[in-house]
Amino acid sequence: MSGSETVKILGISGSLRRASFNTMALRAAAELAPAGMSIDICDIGDLPLYNDDVRAAGFPPAVQSLRDRIKAADGLLFATPEYNYSVPGVLKNAIDWASRPPEQPFDGKPIAVMGASPGALGSVRAQYHLRQCFIFLNGHILNRPEVMIGAAGSKFDADGKLTDQATRDFLAAMLVAFKAWTLRMRG
Amino acid sequence: MSGSETVKILGISGSLRRASFNTMALRAAAELAPAGMSIDICDIGDLPLYNDDVRAAGFPPAVQSLRDRIKAADGLLFATPEYNYSVPGVLKNAIDWASRPPEQPFDGKPIAVMGASPGALGSVRAQYHLRQCFIFLNGHILNRPEVMIGAAGSKFDADGKLTDQATRDFLAAMLVAFKAWTLRMRG
Amino acid sequence: MSGSETVKILGISGSLRRASFNTMALRAAAELAPAGMSIDICDIGDLPLYNDDVRAAGFPPAVQSLRDRIKAADGLLFATPEYNYSVPGVLKNAIDWASRPPEQPFDGKPIAVMGASPGALGSVRAQYHLRQCFIFLNGHILNRPEVMIGAAGSKFDADGKLTDQATRDFLAAMLVAFKAWTLRMRG
Amino acid sequence: MSGSETVKILGISGSLRRASFNTMALRAAAELAPAGMSIDICDIGDLPLYNDDVRAAGFPPAVQSLRDRIKAADGLLFATPEYNYSVPGVLKNAIDWASRPPEQPFDGKPIAVMGASPGALGSVRAQYHLRQCFIFLNGHILNRPEVMIGAAGSKFDADGKLTDQATRDFLAAMLVAFKAWTLRMRG
Repeated sequence: MSGSETVKILGISGSLRRASFNTMALRAAAELAPAGMSIDICDIGDLPLYNDDVRAAGFPPAVQSLRDRIKAADGLLFATPEYNYSVPGVLKNAIDWASRPPEQPFDGKPIAVMGASPGALGSVRAQYHLRQCFIFLNGHILNRPEVMIGAAGSKFDADGKLTDQATRDFLAAMLVAFKAWTLRMRG
Repeated sequence: MSGSETVKILGISGSLRRASFNTMALRAAAELAPAGMSIDICDIGDLPLYNDDVRAAGFPPAVQSLRDRIKAADGLLFATPEYNYSVPGVLKNAIDWASRPPEQPFDGKPIAVMGASPGALGSVRAQYHLRQCFIFLNGHILNRPEVMIGAAGSKFDADGKLTDQATRDFLAAMLVAFKAWTLRMRG
Repeated sequence: MSGSETVKILGISGSLRRASFNTMALRAAAELAPAGMSIDICDIGDLPLYNDDVRAAGFPPAVQSLRDRIKAADGLLFATPEYNYSVPGVLKNAIDWASRPPEQPFDGKPIAVMGASPGALGSVRAQYHLRQCFIFLNGHILNRPEVMIGAAGSKFDADGKLTDQATRDFLAAMLVAFKAWTLRMRG
Repeated sequence: MSGSETVKILGISGSLRRASFNTMALRAAAELAPAGMSIDICDIGDLPLYNDDVRAAGFPPAVQSLRDRIKAADGLLFATPEYNYSVPGVLKNAIDWASRPPEQPFDGKPIAVMGASPGALGSVRAQYHLRQCFIFLNGHILNRPEVMIGAAGSKFDADGKLTDQATRDFLAAMLVAFKAWTLRMRG
């Protein structure tokens, strides 16, 4: 990848509901991405529950599609809510499916993690659990800045647009750092 | 609950495959349970992926059934594999569904956690993530003994029976401690 | 312990500086404790660094004193800052010393955890690391309410008094729950 | 740093006792380091307990020396025991001191983590807590291989030499990966 090419990021939201703050945050990220970075958003709602007997018979089409998109991406951006002080099962299920051999697609991939929550802490507990997964999977997660959008109900409007300017600026700064990190890790 | 009544435990395995070591470990627990403790095993493979829009329209039948079984149990025994250094999405998804209001069914429930894995560490990383969930949900998790069945491939036979005597003894001791913990927490 | 006796709590702050928000929070807790609960505050600044060769030769006097105070307490209240996303070394060092055999003094002890920080998150990351320690040590930690005093600089006055009324109320409610938990665990 | 220069690694052990398995493991690492990598071992036993009032008056000499050595190193290798399911207070205290401004010395530093323990799990719980610290400090930790030396009592001889060949090979492989990681992160 030369410096002049576009860094293609795949965004994955951990929430399936239509009015998800995390999906909104990904859309805001796509809008705020710096020049030379594109963010496509991927749906994980059509995956089955992980069952290794099913996997052994061949990846279901929705899994294969997710794996292909991850492999094709230059980097990944996760937006995770916090369910019960950890990563949503829905998101973990997608990672569990995508991670299986052959050709583990997270291996060496640059990754950024963000999250939004109605409460004050912005999914902080979930984010560290998510980060731990990628030690095993050898993802390269951007350390900082960490984006934790607390009180999310006050920061998006009725159309799902991120309206809080401080959050917009912070998210934009993270994306600039993530672009540099992606280029650096791709050598 | 008087001391003479049976403590009814609901066992939940985090793996859906037929030959799951964790489901085998739950069956071993059912066999090794001390007098006055029964362990029924619950399947979580028929749940949909958690979607809050679906929940708002009413719990799907499989979710309602899981919630009812959790509420009716005197305690819970989780057997969790470790997928990607954390709790399987499948298991977390079941907890995410079951935990939703009204009447959060984990509140005040005595819980024990165990795990099995082919590797050396017996799902240790997953178990601490699982424990963190129940801080929020106000489950009361037995501290010790902690059952981590490493090298699981060598400890069960072809029929799925736990044959390693040291592991059988350790599991039996944990169940005795868990029975006492359940009675204690039920006051 | 009968219901009419006083529950004696030992408070331990993870910060040694004079103007520590966490020590201030412990003082506020002592002031806000419900009837039938007393909170004494213990200093851990005179302990040496843990060295097992030193321990093998006998506990230093400051360690022995800490151990004695923990043993004599009906419960423990930790107030921990967050240093580098975890428990301060100073606090962990005190736990490491106190935990050594014989007669591990945390075994079966009711515990509550709180924390204060200048930032928004109120030491949340440190608190879960601290909680994990007591799985091994078989402490019984109150699940909820969790007290995380963010933006601490705006909640205490120049004399170190907790002046934010919402925080005072929340802390008082936690102490009521902790008293009940202590009585319950002492059975 | 050109490819022909030596990568200078500073090794830090989390245990102060003379016969520490972790210090022995660092010595083994120094012996097994690949061509072009040197490992010096640093003592953290002469640091005071962290006190921010003391820091504000100026770093004590032992702290200044530690900071200088960290800054001068191309990368860091931590060998951590597990005390009470987390990082030893002694090691965390060293990190807390070293991390303070100005010129936070861990920023951007390549890091590898290893650990040894008498038990089966090789300090696994401590290692993930340690890794979390360096998200904040913007260290770049090698994901894999992870070195967890369980049953350490059987793997070192009376002179403190690592004699278990499988462990020697695994440690050597980690050091090769760490050298490559250090060169990569230094760009």
